[in-house]
Amino acid sequence: MKDSGAAVAHIFNSAVAAAAIGAAWEAGILDVLNQNRVLNLADFAEEHGLHLRSTAAVVRALAAVGVVETDGGGEVVPAEHFAEVYRTRSFFHWMTRGSGELFRRMPELLPERARHGDYYQRDSAAIAFACREISAFSYDPWFWKAIDRIEREPAVVADLGCGSGERLIQLLTRLPHAEALGIDVAEPALAEAAVATAEAGMADRTTLVVEDVLTMAPRPEFDRVELLTCFMMGHDFWPRTQCVRTLRRLRELFPRAERFLLGDATRTVGVADRDLPTFTLGFEVAHELMGIQLPTVEEWESVFEEGGWVVVGKHWIDVAVGEVIFELEPR
Amino acid sequence: MKDSGAAVAHIFNSAVAAAAIGAAWEAGILDVLNQNRVLNLADFAEEHGLHLRSTAAVVRALAAVGVVETDGGGEVVPAEHFAEVYRTRSFFHWMTRGSGELFRRMPELLPERARHGDYYQRDSAAIAFACREISAFSYDPWFWKAIDRIEREPAVVADLGCGSGERLIQLLTRLPHAEALGIDVAEPALAEAAVATAEAGMADRTTLVVEDVLTMAPRPEFDRVELLTCFMMGHDFWPRTQCVRTLRRLRELFPRAERFLLGDATRTVGVADRDLPTFTLGFEVAHELMGIQLPTVEEWESVFEEGGWVVVGKHWIDVAVGEVIFELEPR
Repeated sequence: MKDSGAAVAHIFNSAVAAAAIGAAWEAGILDVLNQNRVLNLADFAEEHGLHLRSTAAVVRALAAVGVVETDGGGEVVPAEHFAEVYRTRSFFHWMTRGSGELFRRMPELLPERARHGDYYQRDSAAIAFACREISAFSYDPWFWKAIDRIEREPAVVADLGCGSGERLIQLLTRLPHAEALGIDVAEPALAEAAVATAEAGMADRTTLVVEDVLTMAPRPEFDRVELLTCFMMGHDFWPRTQCVRTLRRLRELFPRAERFLLGDATRTVGVADRDLPTFTLGFEVAHELMGIQLPTVEEWESVFEEGGWVVVGKHWIDVAVGEVIFELEPR
Repeated sequence: MKDSGAAVAHIFNSAVAAAAIGAAWEAGILDVLNQNRVLNLADFAEEHGLHLRSTAAVVRALAAVGVVETDGGGEVVPAEHFAEVYRTRSFFHWMTRGSGELFRRMPELLPERARHGDYYQRDSAAIAFACREISAFSYDPWFWKAIDRIEREPAVVADLGCGSGERLIQLLTRLPHAEALGIDVAEPALAEAAVATAEAGMADRTTLVVEDVLTMAPRPEFDRVELLTCFMMGHDFWPRTQCVRTLRRLRELFPRAERFLLGDATRTVGVADRDLPTFTLGFEVAHELMGIQLPTVEEWESVFEEGGWVVVGKHWIDVAVGEVIFELEPR
């Protein structure tokens, strides 16, 4: 038996530090430390109009778990876990900022009788902030390889669950003659996508549609779509029966789609609870609380044929939460 | 350099586990495990009307940091850190449930321009829930020793910041001929105190007053008070000038007070950030975010004489956040 006093104190202090990592990223502290390798607390607080004692408290929480070191005189430098925290900061932010309210209300979300209607809240702006980085971090290298394998530039690419439009802009940049269709159920995100595509000079090549991918009706503009992409929303297709139906429906809605790139997190299998890497536990606990059952890779692989698609490529990324990209073609 | 991947995953998983500790306490999971040394997940969820998968997710978070072990078949047993977590559960609850919103909004609370008015929120009901246990855990043994040292039973005891009245009831039980005066600025807490003292058959011996201890005017009933108690609110007296003024004022408001038992947390001094025990870091970071500067023991000791009191006893408890009880007499 280890020294439980110290071990439990470390659990407690880690929870304070997790909030501080999200805060320090958002406040710019992590970026300054990463670039300059040193940060003067008083100068930083002054420059950014921050309350010095609170800013020092955030830094102290980082110091308590070996992310930074302080010299007592207000100079902060990276410590041994800084690099890894800097790499995974968006996961911490997702948990403490975006999903903090979900975790705070955990005991209230357990009773079956409480789980009706909009029974939980999250901060969608904060989640969008973290997910932009998570998406790039987790999927982008493999995504571009899959795009590069497409031989003929598609006339139109449709991004299902396009959010604030980063992927649309990246696709239009890579595919200079293509048009893009962004579909998302969240109007505020689509409004951001409209601004972003306009700023990128791509408004005339982009159509944005407020629709629920799971229930939307056919539209004339869907007929010209030759490439489908869908990232970080595929788990919403589930459970199984609904997923098969949705996959079949996408075939009908987009009759000319030649390729479908589907990237998402999947439920971990075979990792001991004590060996879970950063993000997995928070991501999976949050989805259980929200009543969303994440499919495993095996479960995904069991639906494509029935859903009218065939897997022509599979990229097992698994940086944190079983990320995978399936390259699909119509059967 | 240690394996940062595993170390940072442990920080992340600890944050999920910290929320799960508070939830598991509130849901009764910790108590069942403590008493029966085993818990069947499906039976427990069924019996309490809980969503099984979410309840399993809470338990999985505990398993990830060695608080419990699961066998995969739904039997849960305590693991090596269970005893220490069970002992310190109220501190976790204070942080994740009561103060969770404060930590979630950490980056928004850093800019000076944001720190005006009611710029932060906490869950006062959750804090009261945790603080009842924290108070008993931290102060009670030493508190009763201090009470036992009082030679003559006081006619009236006044509890400053009486909250929901637990201490009032304990005092009236211990002092069978005394009357009690409970003073608190929080009306909801005083309403609970009214119910609790009535249920204890002590309504006729108790007067409850909604007042801010720092600004209240004299009242006739104050004149008969011979014993003053004040727990877990003394830091509100500070900064120094206001503290001296408040201590002097208490002399005037309670002219017959012969003894004043003042118990509170104090700011840690001389403990390295990495060696902070459970609670300290969360407690001190939270107070910095709220703009409350916790005094050190030394700072307390510097105000009593000027404030009109003399220290006749000092109990350095320090279970977590530098708890101390001062026994004071009028100078």
